[in-house]
Amino acid sequence: MNGGDGASSYARNSSYQRGAIEAAEALLRNEINTRLDITNHSFSSFTIADFGCSSGPNTILAVDIIIQALYHKFTSSLPNTTTPQFQVFFNDVPHTDFNALFALLPPQRPYFVAGVPGSFYGNLFPKAHLNLAYSSCALCWLSDLPPELTDRSSPAYNRGRIHYTGASAEVVQAYSYQYKKDIKLFLHARSQELAENGLMALIVPGVPDGFLDCQEASTGSEFDLLGSCLMDMAREGVIKEEEVDSFNLPIYYPTPKELEDVIRSNGELKIDKMETLGSMGAQDTMPDLQSRVLYLRAVLEGLVRTHFGHQILDDLFDRYALKLAHSSFILQPQTHKSIMIFALLSRCHDI
Amino acid sequence: MNGGDGASSYARNSSYQRGAIEAAEALLRNEINTRLDITNHSFSSFTIADFGCSSGPNTILAVDIIIQALYHKFTSSLPNTTTPQFQVFFNDVPHTDFNALFALLPPQRPYFVAGVPGSFYGNLFPKAHLNLAYSSCALCWLSDLPPELTDRSSPAYNRGRIHYTGASAEVVQAYSYQYKKDIKLFLHARSQELAENGLMALIVPGVPDGFLDCQEASTGSEFDLLGSCLMDMAREGVIKEEEVDSFNLPIYYPTPKELEDVIRSNGELKIDKMETLGSMGAQDTMPDLQSRVLYLRAVLEGLVRTHFGHQILDDLFDRYALKLAHSSFILQPQTHKSIMIFALLSRCHDI
Repeated sequence: MNGGDGASSYARNSSYQRGAIEAAEALLRNEINTRLDITNHSFSSFTIADFGCSSGPNTILAVDIIIQALYHKFTSSLPNTTTPQFQVFFNDVPHTDFNALFALLPPQRPYFVAGVPGSFYGNLFPKAHLNLAYSSCALCWLSDLPPELTDRSSPAYNRGRIHYTGASAEVVQAYSYQYKKDIKLFLHARSQELAENGLMALIVPGVPDGFLDCQEASTGSEFDLLGSCLMDMAREGVIKEEEVDSFNLPIYYPTPKELEDVIRSNGELKIDKMETLGSMGAQDTMPDLQSRVLYLRAVLEGLVRTHFGHQILDDLFDRYALKLAHSSFILQPQTHKSIMIFALLSRCHDI
Repeated sequence: MNGGDGASSYARNSSYQRGAIEAAEALLRNEINTRLDITNHSFSSFTIADFGCSSGPNTILAVDIIIQALYHKFTSSLPNTTTPQFQVFFNDVPHTDFNALFALLPPQRPYFVAGVPGSFYGNLFPKAHLNLAYSSCALCWLSDLPPELTDRSSPAYNRGRIHYTGASAEVVQAYSYQYKKDIKLFLHARSQELAENGLMALIVPGVPDGFLDCQEASTGSEFDLLGSCLMDMAREGVIKEEEVDSFNLPIYYPTPKELEDVIRSNGELKIDKMETLGSMGAQDTMPDLQSRVLYLRAVLEGLVRTHFGHQILDDLFDRYALKLAHSSFILQPQTHKSIMIFALLSRCHDI
């Protein structure tokens, strides 16, 4: 994600992710209110972690919603007990702009704060440390790319593309396999870190079940457009075709069924609730061409810069804007719906 | 402190602070070994906080020493118990370069990490959260400047100087009063955050008792030299004299007696041990002129830039280097000793 707060920063171009949080808000409040078991515990403090928090106003928005819900829960369920002190851990990869995130925090806030740098595919907290874990729009990022995508001898060699959208079944399978491996690591780590009666709320960008037979959902297809811009640049000699062949986006959007299966096969956390938030249309959160371009740039610019260098950035996203203007995303926005999968999990066993 | 890792960064010019940690190392190991009471507790995790950690290799060094001492303590005292998981909180003001600090962390480390942005003169953690608190070379920074220093009608108006060294008794008193007020806030906050049987180790840069009658200790006098360079620049019209009058360094070096008195008057934490580490000569940690100049620049550049603008920085520190070359610090290094005050504190009462 682009740091800072400049024109192409994530902080200023994350209305899509904001839409996801807002769509899940009522569910989140309700689940905290009805499912969080606080009756048998005397909390002196209550620990919350946001996994893959990124660095922008959405980070603060999500925490505000959670803290409000927790205050309501504690004051209504235990009116004669002092509300515990809340401690919020913001986690993301170490190169996240933590300084920008800390600068966004309101000076007066009803919680203590800490930033936790590190991959959420490994352990980040002591055992049984977290009362509430949360992750929104982050579990689509793979820990790494499947190596066969850049192996010329593999049937999953992803020539001329930068993602699995529109690619061969082998490419899709390689991505799907990596995703399942990653999510298992995530679930295993969190199952150790969740306290007794702890809950974990996930908001996962996804595609509808049966997506591979149905190319209507927009999620992923914009990467396909961006890939075709890179191939145009390769044909014109601006970049090399091999550079496009060796560039792949470490992003995967599961179907609800896929996510459910991997959680069940992990066996350490159980699904208390799972629901698809399907009503969010891209046209609601990003109504115009410019905001869609800036959104994609904020998310992907870092990866593109690292692989191709900063020189191509403006050219690439200018080409992308032109292609996008003639695409069905813009011409028929009502046909393109993203889905978000909301899942509430808790520990199956004591640790 | 200067962030990043450039030529004038704190990370590359903090051998003085490193000397303080090394001087206190044996004491710290010994106190953890002999005074930390772990027998009546079953720790699943053990929480450590470094208050005013800054962003450099010293930060990691101090934590390494503490973790090693804790491992030794747990394995020797409770050989049949699993050593707890360690969680280390790095605290400093929000504009500290946390990203640079996170980048310095060894990828494989025997502790979990979190960064905590905020002033340590207020609460930063839930109650009874910390098993071991630590602060080195940080408690000399005031939370704010006494307002009378820039009040023309006050006897403590600090005209033509940037610090209390060599200034009137009223200026010294104004600084001293602010220091005591700040330390009381620090002690009150920590007394709430320390867990039962928790310990706090402080390494505080100071001056010998009776310092005001004895101008030999070097601590503070370098600020006097820097102030005289600024006054030279004012006389030459490079900056305005009023700008020097309104600039004061928010730094105070207590005597051991002063620190002891303020801890006793606070009454929430008791002194288990207090010792002066007096053997550290500036010539040991900063043998040459250039390293002394870079040290001061790393510490003060940010304050100077904010008040006077970046244009004067090279000129100022060049002038400072010239003056320093003819000063007794360089000509007679053996006469200039800084002291460090080591104090080990614990809670007086249950909270």
